[in-house]
Amino acid sequence: MPTTSEPPTRIDQIRLTAERLFRERGYLATSVRDIGEAVGMRGASLYHHIGGKEDLLWAIASRAADGFFAALRPILAEEAAAPLKLRRAIIAHIGVITANLDAAAVYFNEWRHLSDERRTEFLRRRDEYEAGFRAILWQGIREGHFAAIDEKFAARFVLSALNWTHQWYRPDGAMPPETIGQTLADYLLNGLSQALPISPA
Amino acid sequence: MPTTSEPPTRIDQIRLTAERLFRERGYLATSVRDIGEAVGMRGASLYHHIGGKEDLLWAIASRAADGFFAALRPILAEEAAAPLKLRRAIIAHIGVITANLDAAAVYFNEWRHLSDERRTEFLRRRDEYEAGFRAILWQGIREGHFAAIDEKFAARFVLSALNWTHQWYRPDGAMPPETIGQTLADYLLNGLSQALPISPA
Repeated sequence: MPTTSEPPTRIDQIRLTAERLFRERGYLATSVRDIGEAVGMRGASLYHHIGGKEDLLWAIASRAADGFFAALRPILAEEAAAPLKLRRAIIAHIGVITANLDAAAVYFNEWRHLSDERRTEFLRRRDEYEAGFRAILWQGIREGHFAAIDEKFAARFVLSALNWTHQWYRPDGAMPPETIGQTLADYLLNGLSQALPISPA
Repeated sequence: MPTTSEPPTRIDQIRLTAERLFRERGYLATSVRDIGEAVGMRGASLYHHIGGKEDLLWAIASRAADGFFAALRPILAEEAAAPLKLRRAIIAHIGVITANLDAAAVYFNEWRHLSDERRTEFLRRRDEYEAGFRAILWQGIREGHFAAIDEKFAARFVLSALNWTHQWYRPDGAMPPETIGQTLADYLLNGLSQALPISPA
């Protein structure tokens, strides 16, 4: 229904531009002036929209966190076996990363430049998200689907293997996000090894 | 033999300081003056040692690449089954990361700020290193130890799962690097799933 679709608001334009610049140059090396020049706004008018540069970083990081939570929450609520839930959570996570690479890069790399209070809150939410993966892993261990792993270390392992996607994924590449998610789920659930056929000698 | 051990040279001090600052603030947000202040040297004297800031980044990135290669090369030359080689390569890689977290962070995150020619050379060497992992995977596929995976994607997957270590590893943490390497090798080789015991119902 194109008649009801809204054009991007000024604040959306500013946010998307800031995401790109923070990703390309890093937060510290990007000035409000740089953002203003890229969107064609002067400082005073820009500050009216965003507050300060750190407010913009906070808005980007919070919005990215919201996106990860929104994708994971329905999967956590499912009645399903843990391996299937983990597979769905992996695909959802890859979906969020690949849908906005700039925001993902800021979420993964630039949060350390948040002010103390906001950094604490950011890390609390990130841990809460990771706890969703821990819950799936714990369910799988309890039900005998997963090996008796340390679910805290394993959750970090899974997310680490997924998060790097933001570094190499290209929207015009050969693998669509769903295929990347399925393949990573195969590797993470089953490992690279396979049972060897019984061989002579 | 402590009598033969050399004190760190001036250039070592400068490099270690630059690694730390590049990691903490990012390359773009670190000036030669910042580095000079941290090591107690003036600009002119500092430039005498390092050339420019980008020369320092290049020196750090190249040295880190040398470290990864030095750890992997003897493993590639071994006559051993692919799963054992992969395990050793994983432990070696974790060893290099954890031995110098600052250098690893610069190697993983700041190389993009190298000049075009050096960035091309850096990426060529990084791909050459990744090719070592591809060779191990390909050996394992050929010999039937590994599933019929895409060894290029799988090599990137393995390195991604390992590289994140530089983000969370703390030298005073509970897991020594060798244990981290062994655990990650278990996960990567065998996956999180286990065969379910045959159960009634």
